Amino acid sequence: MNNFTFYSPTEFVFGKDTELQTGELVRKYNGHKALIVYGGGSVVRSGLLDRVKTSLKNAGVEFVELGGVQPNPTDPKVYEGIDLGRSEKVDFLLPVGGGSVIDTAKAIAAGILYDGDFWDFYVGKVVIKKALRLGVVLTIPAAGSEGSGNSVITKVDGLKKLSVRTPEALRPAFAVMNPELTYTLPAWQTASGVTDMMAHIMERYFSNTQGVEIADRMCEGVLKSIITEAPKVIADPKDYNARANIMWAGTVAHNGTCGVGCVEDWASHFMEHEVSAVYDVTHGAGLAVIFPAWLTYMADHNVHKVAQFAERVWDVPASDDKKAVALEGIARFKKFLKAIGMPVTFKELGIENPDIDLLVKKLHENKGELVGNYVQLDKKATREIYELANR
Amino acid sequence: MNNFTFYSPTEFVFGKDTELQTGELVRKYNGHKALIVYGGGSVVRSGLLDRVKTSLKNAGVEFVELGGVQPNPTDPKVYEGIDLGRSEKVDFLLPVGGGSVIDTAKAIAAGILYDGDFWDFYVGKVVIKKALRLGVVLTIPAAGSEGSGNSVITKVDGLKKLSVRTPEALRPAFAVMNPELTYTLPAWQTASGVTDMMAHIMERYFSNTQGVEIADRMCEGVLKSIITEAPKVIADPKDYNARANIMWAGTVAHNGTCGVGCVEDWASHFMEHEVSAVYDVTHGAGLAVIFPAWLTYMADHNVHKVAQFAERVWDVPASDDKKAVALEGIARFKKFLKAIGMPVTFKELGIENPDIDLLVKKLHENKGELVGNYVQLDKKATREIYELANR
Repeated sequence: MNNFTFYSPTEFVFGKDTELQTGELVRKYNGHKALIVYGGGSVVRSGLLDRVKTSLKNAGVEFVELGGVQPNPTDPKVYEGIDLGRSEKVDFLLPVGGGSVIDTAKAIAAGILYDGDFWDFYVGKVVIKKALRLGVVLTIPAAGSEGSGNSVITKVDGLKKLSVRTPEALRPAFAVMNPELTYTLPAWQTASGVTDMMAHIMERYFSNTQGVEIADRMCEGVLKSIITEAPKVIADPKDYNARANIMWAGTVAHNGTCGVGCVEDWASHFMEHEVSAVYDVTHGAGLAVIFPAWLTYMADHNVHKVAQFAERVWDVPASDDKKAVALEGIARFKKFLKAIGMPVTFKELGIENPDIDLLVKKLHENKGELVGNYVQLDKKATREIYELANR
Repeated sequence: MNNFTFYSPTEFVFGKDTELQTGELVRKYNGHKALIVYGGGSVVRSGLLDRVKTSLKNAGVEFVELGGVQPNPTDPKVYEGIDLGRSEKVDFLLPVGGGSVIDTAKAIAAGILYDGDFWDFYVGKVVIKKALRLGVVLTIPAAGSEGSGNSVITKVDGLKKLSVRTPEALRPAFAVMNPELTYTLPAWQTASGVTDMMAHIMERYFSNTQGVEIADRMCEGVLKSIITEAPKVIADPKDYNARANIMWAGTVAHNGTCGVGCVEDWASHFMEHEVSAVYDVTHGAGLAVIFPAWLTYMADHNVHKVAQFAERVWDVPASDDKKAVALEGIARFKKFLKAIGMPVTFKELGIENPDIDLLVKKLHENKGELVGNYVQLDKKATREIYELANR
């Protein structure tokens, strides 16, 4: 096991009606004027935004609003938020939504306090040292951004999708998580979220670090609970307990709980980021296509942990033929993804003829000659994986 | 699943040589003069105390020392620490040791800022509102006190062993956790710690709350990793990875990670507290006697989760005869405990003729007419469990 730091200072307030505590929580963390950030009209139509505003008013918190954040969020909205936040002198960011909304709010929170261009953070020119505090009202369990210090933003000019990871500055002070708020999520978005959280666990799980039994068992346990609960939310979107299990899984998948002491991988995420930057597909759906292809490549190049995944997560009987065990696990994973409505090939994702040359070129331009750690992948390897995803 | 709050703000700094960061960490959390609290001579003999002091000096942190904390820590040492801390005007508590040392430091941290008698907190007369900050250098993985807001102190006069639970005030700001510091723990203490952490998980796991798949799977995963790793540390006390897995298990067992959204039980802990208050036995060893007896009682009175525990944690084949499955699981649990050197009866614990009348009387005096939640236990039931532990 490698040395690690586990630091998850976010106060997660989980359960029914918890959004009514938003105002008190903003005050508790010294917010006086909040910039509410949200996406499309669903938080308006559902009445959630009104409930949050009432809670803020009751707690004596002022606020201004920035709506219209899109999935795969882009830089123009961040610049707009920075300008608005500065002119309105806000001291707190309050994203109400999913990962795209939270990531945009994080970029604004850091950008407001920085004299230069916020994009400097994402290209690695400058490290985020400080940011306005933020609290989250989560409506889409998927990205895990409510408990992470990460943010992913796409620059429209050049279609670069880049991420920052600065736990100390960008972790939300609190996250309000009411599973009922996810009842109205379309099945597609629910399933994409499920895939994203599974991928977050798997990026940590697929590691060559030895002696990490507790990390392995916790990853496997969370994956097993997702596998049990996801079909229930697809079958009955108002199954509270299933929604609650899925929502909490999305958080522990990405707040550091899973994978302590392991060298993490992240090649599949990087490979998918290129796909969604070029084709503007849903991140989770992109992962449903890329991750099984990545696993299939690994069954040939580093089978050990893929076989363990098959045995412990997918209940494939153990056998000396590790590759066969691994492939059976991958087959069960794909079957699960299809059952919850996910694509598992480019074609099923709606990309008939993916420009694999372009994807490989951009991937290695953005991420370097080698990506990933479980097996370090060069251009030849990533091309092979993109091609496996195109079968 | 019930509503819950997950709040674990402690910065856990885990791995080799991490004690050398102690000074910097005290400074990071605004400590200028620390009261170092420790137990017997082992932290002196091992050189750990010197390394910590050097680290403090290098960071410009002043300190005074309070040694001599005993297992099952008592109130006189707390009063001594409060007096010393006040006269020396310390602003930070730095326990170096295990649960007894940390719990004593927590009581001192709260007591220094309180005008009345610190014991008021433990009898529930006053809620702890503020405390000096504390950081921990952990040497015994067991109590989970490094990541919890709990503290257990015994009052010598009257042998009352009582606990407080005030997460916001008493959670350590940081915990330095170097598994190498546990190499010299005697096998008995290692095994007692292992039993204590398993019990912390099981107190949360045995719950009637429905729809808690993620809580169940995470509890089961951590238990399984303990079951794999504990025999390794008993066989080879310097197995770094096994020590590391056990050490982290002790933390997640008790920092809120396990059992989210569940009504917890805690009857076994309460029943054991009376045993160790009267007979001054090691808490973990007491739990090794009480918990299997509690489980045996539950096999007759609420078998469901005991059978699940048997199937998922102890790999007992499923069967329609739930009680038989449960009993086989309990048998495997006892076999495990014996294999790591734990007693499973009063007699093996060194108590030939336990005064069960006294234990039952004190238990219900201290904890009320009914204890526990999985099944609420009256005097007749707790007597039966103490008697099961005496077979």
